[in-house]
Amino acid sequence: MLPQGLIDALIDRLGADRVLTDRDALIPYARDWRGQFHSTPAAVLRPRSTEQVAGAVSLCAQAGVAVIPQAGNTGLVGGSVARSGQVIVSLDRLTAVRSLDIDNDTITVEAGCILADVQRTAAAEGRLFPLSLAAEGSCRIGGNLATNAGGVNVLRYGNVRDLTLGLEVVLADGRIWDGLSGLRKDNSGYDLKHWFIGSEGTLGIITAATLRLFPALAQRETAFIAVPDPAAAVRLLGEFRRASGDNCIACELLPRLALQLVCRHIPGCRDPLDEPAPWYLLVELASPAAGEWLADALQMVLASGLEDGDVSDAVMAGSLDQAAALWRLRESIPEAQTREGASLKHDVSVPVSRLPAFVSEAGAAVTRAMPGVRVCAFGHVGDGNLHFNLSQPPGDDGDAFLARADEAGRIIHDLVATMGGSVAAEHGIGRLKPAALRRYRSPVAVELMRTIKRALDPDNRLNPGAVLDREP
Amino acid sequence: MLPQGLIDALIDRLGADRVLTDRDALIPYARDWRGQFHSTPAAVLRPRSTEQVAGAVSLCAQAGVAVIPQAGNTGLVGGSVARSGQVIVSLDRLTAVRSLDIDNDTITVEAGCILADVQRTAAAEGRLFPLSLAAEGSCRIGGNLATNAGGVNVLRYGNVRDLTLGLEVVLADGRIWDGLSGLRKDNSGYDLKHWFIGSEGTLGIITAATLRLFPALAQRETAFIAVPDPAAAVRLLGEFRRASGDNCIACELLPRLALQLVCRHIPGCRDPLDEPAPWYLLVELASPAAGEWLADALQMVLASGLEDGDVSDAVMAGSLDQAAALWRLRESIPEAQTREGASLKHDVSVPVSRLPAFVSEAGAAVTRAMPGVRVCAFGHVGDGNLHFNLSQPPGDDGDAFLARADEAGRIIHDLVATMGGSVAAEHGIGRLKPAALRRYRSPVAVELMRTIKRALDPDNRLNPGAVLDREP
Repeated sequence: MLPQGLIDALIDRLGADRVLTDRDALIPYARDWRGQFHSTPAAVLRPRSTEQVAGAVSLCAQAGVAVIPQAGNTGLVGGSVARSGQVIVSLDRLTAVRSLDIDNDTITVEAGCILADVQRTAAAEGRLFPLSLAAEGSCRIGGNLATNAGGVNVLRYGNVRDLTLGLEVVLADGRIWDGLSGLRKDNSGYDLKHWFIGSEGTLGIITAATLRLFPALAQRETAFIAVPDPAAAVRLLGEFRRASGDNCIACELLPRLALQLVCRHIPGCRDPLDEPAPWYLLVELASPAAGEWLADALQMVLASGLEDGDVSDAVMAGSLDQAAALWRLRESIPEAQTREGASLKHDVSVPVSRLPAFVSEAGAAVTRAMPGVRVCAFGHVGDGNLHFNLSQPPGDDGDAFLARADEAGRIIHDLVATMGGSVAAEHGIGRLKPAALRRYRSPVAVELMRTIKRALDPDNRLNPGAVLDREP
Repeated sequence: MLPQGLIDALIDRLGADRVLTDRDALIPYARDWRGQFHSTPAAVLRPRSTEQVAGAVSLCAQAGVAVIPQAGNTGLVGGSVARSGQVIVSLDRLTAVRSLDIDNDTITVEAGCILADVQRTAAAEGRLFPLSLAAEGSCRIGGNLATNAGGVNVLRYGNVRDLTLGLEVVLADGRIWDGLSGLRKDNSGYDLKHWFIGSEGTLGIITAATLRLFPALAQRETAFIAVPDPAAAVRLLGEFRRASGDNCIACELLPRLALQLVCRHIPGCRDPLDEPAPWYLLVELASPAAGEWLADALQMVLASGLEDGDVSDAVMAGSLDQAAALWRLRESIPEAQTREGASLKHDVSVPVSRLPAFVSEAGAAVTRAMPGVRVCAFGHVGDGNLHFNLSQPPGDDGDAFLARADEAGRIIHDLVATMGGSVAAEHGIGRLKPAALRRYRSPVAVELMRTIKRALDPDNRLNPGAVLDREP
């Protein structure tokens, strides 16, 4: 429960329809995507402007009430989950495209813009906004920025951090930092935006951003390729990058199991190749230049791969529909895995060079510990980022399998750590992994993070419990 | 003078030959590139390892002595200038290439590595390290990182920040943060490296970095193009980006005056075109893909530019020697301008879309204030980054011209600010521009910077006076 004085002040500031306290109205904001966390906000605020966000934060700060920022609420690590007495500040009403500067190749959008809308707005002007991920139809750009979202095009275009030129942020005490800027080069002091990107709302609330645009793509070639093992996939990645002129924009690895689950559970999906293979690569080459040379590059790499054994079979999409069907195989994996039964998920990364060894050693280790477990390791080879997911042994009890989450996580994360990897590659820390952060980051790194948190949010009022928890 | 106890302790830690106090030995480290600052270090330390850097910083911290980090000492804003009683910590003995991971496309180097050596090491493995700037033969990577160096290839590859995956840093109290990492995706907590990159040694001393490599370039086309005005240059930039498949790796603008000064003062330089033109573009298209299509793209854009008046003449380099000769015209501008007489330099950026208006308005404003002044505005169109330099009126007194530096800076910087630009685009703030930082960054931004400085260096012992000065 909130003090009535605070509720009155918030209603006075935002309007009664922007201060939700009714239980039913809170449900969509309290729901956690994976259902792993129980969120119990005392209220949800839906400000319509940066000034209203600042006002709300300031009033909550004065009342000693913690604020949980929330954008599309599609996160996978409990990053915008509220405990009792805490207030969710939803950015879902800040949806304006503030400006579009075509000659500068930039767009300035508010934090509540849905990612797919940003992509569409850019496309309408002959530009590409390259951030692309499964939730793009419902995730919002503020959440993408708060978690430094990655996705499938990082290989060519970088994470959303790399796509960001400027930010507007509401600070813990309600001040507004207007750092919106469309500059490619600016070294006038510390680059403040990088402190807030990826900080999961614990250092400030991002309310708007200026993002980079790129020339729209004019050629695009998609292929689904059977490969003997991840080592061949890594070699092919290098070949694709060179032959395409560094225009390999996606390179996704799938094990046979992933394809089987998708074909079993997702209507309309079928294996595009005649013979089964242990692993597959879904590769996309694309360029803003007109021409046919990417098809030539693709065929050249495939031909040479067939010759030296790195490729056993392949299909190239002959149309956009065919390309979409191939992508559907990749994008349906999480849903197929859910339909297959209980699963344990691990969002990890290692240097690309270590990926083959990691797949092999991690697979062996979990199989030793959990006989019958089915490893479904898929993801972004070019980024060394695997979703190292485990499906329950067929017929076993799902809950008993899920109860071993910590054990499985420990095996996989320990191995990741020995290979110089990350236990939170693209989904963030949220409330799921603060203990892993403390375990796998060095004490100096953790102490640096705490130092910055104390400096920017001394009363721990912004998203407390996310990223950094209390030492146990 | 330093306390003898500190000198003894430093000698004990580093060895006598690594603790320089002799006046002659200090000269190379005390010299400021532009001769604008008088540096009077009490000592220069030349540690050979990260541990020795940490030891030196720790001893100085305990003795209350400020530390000025220095890499190649090629900076243009007095970023590594010492006052009396301060100690320079030179990174020039930390020159190891610690590792090269070809499948991961990364190289890990120590801060004292010369930039050109990093480029060469990458090239020997068929890879490109794309950071390129005039001082590359003597600047060191630690300085590049501390200032977030830009240069000519930012358009395609980004600033050095975008090329960096991991860092090793010695903190203000002598602790070492080992954040070396070759990961493309890592969201396990705050991304600490971004706090140190571009902080000019005021938050920590960078001792090593893991950098991204790219496929080596296989086609390269260079052209020198006569254009009527900067607006045509901006339009052509967009055409080159699209037609080349975003493989425009450099796009440099030069005014007629720059070409004249270079041809007058630099032996062997000559105007490559028959007719004079008001402006020139030096464009480079390059791709790791083999083939001839970049030459086609270049010719197509030039032909269409000739047709619609954005191009009046152009020459394409037919050999690497010819390309080098064209680049020499661009790279000799600073030297030619120095030989021509006194000059005032301004390293500014604006959104690319505002660049034509900025050139026109800034030129008019300084000409009004300083009749006879010759504007030599050249630089990186693709980044909106101009070196807006002024040459003295011919025959006038150089010192009298230089005495008007503040007045000229104010005119130019005020205009930059109204256009959403930066008064320190790629050279940093150092000791030259802290007042400009305070003037042109918002009070909230400056207070955020001070908050972070206080948090990471509470006793102000790391490069005091750089970036942030005392409020007057």
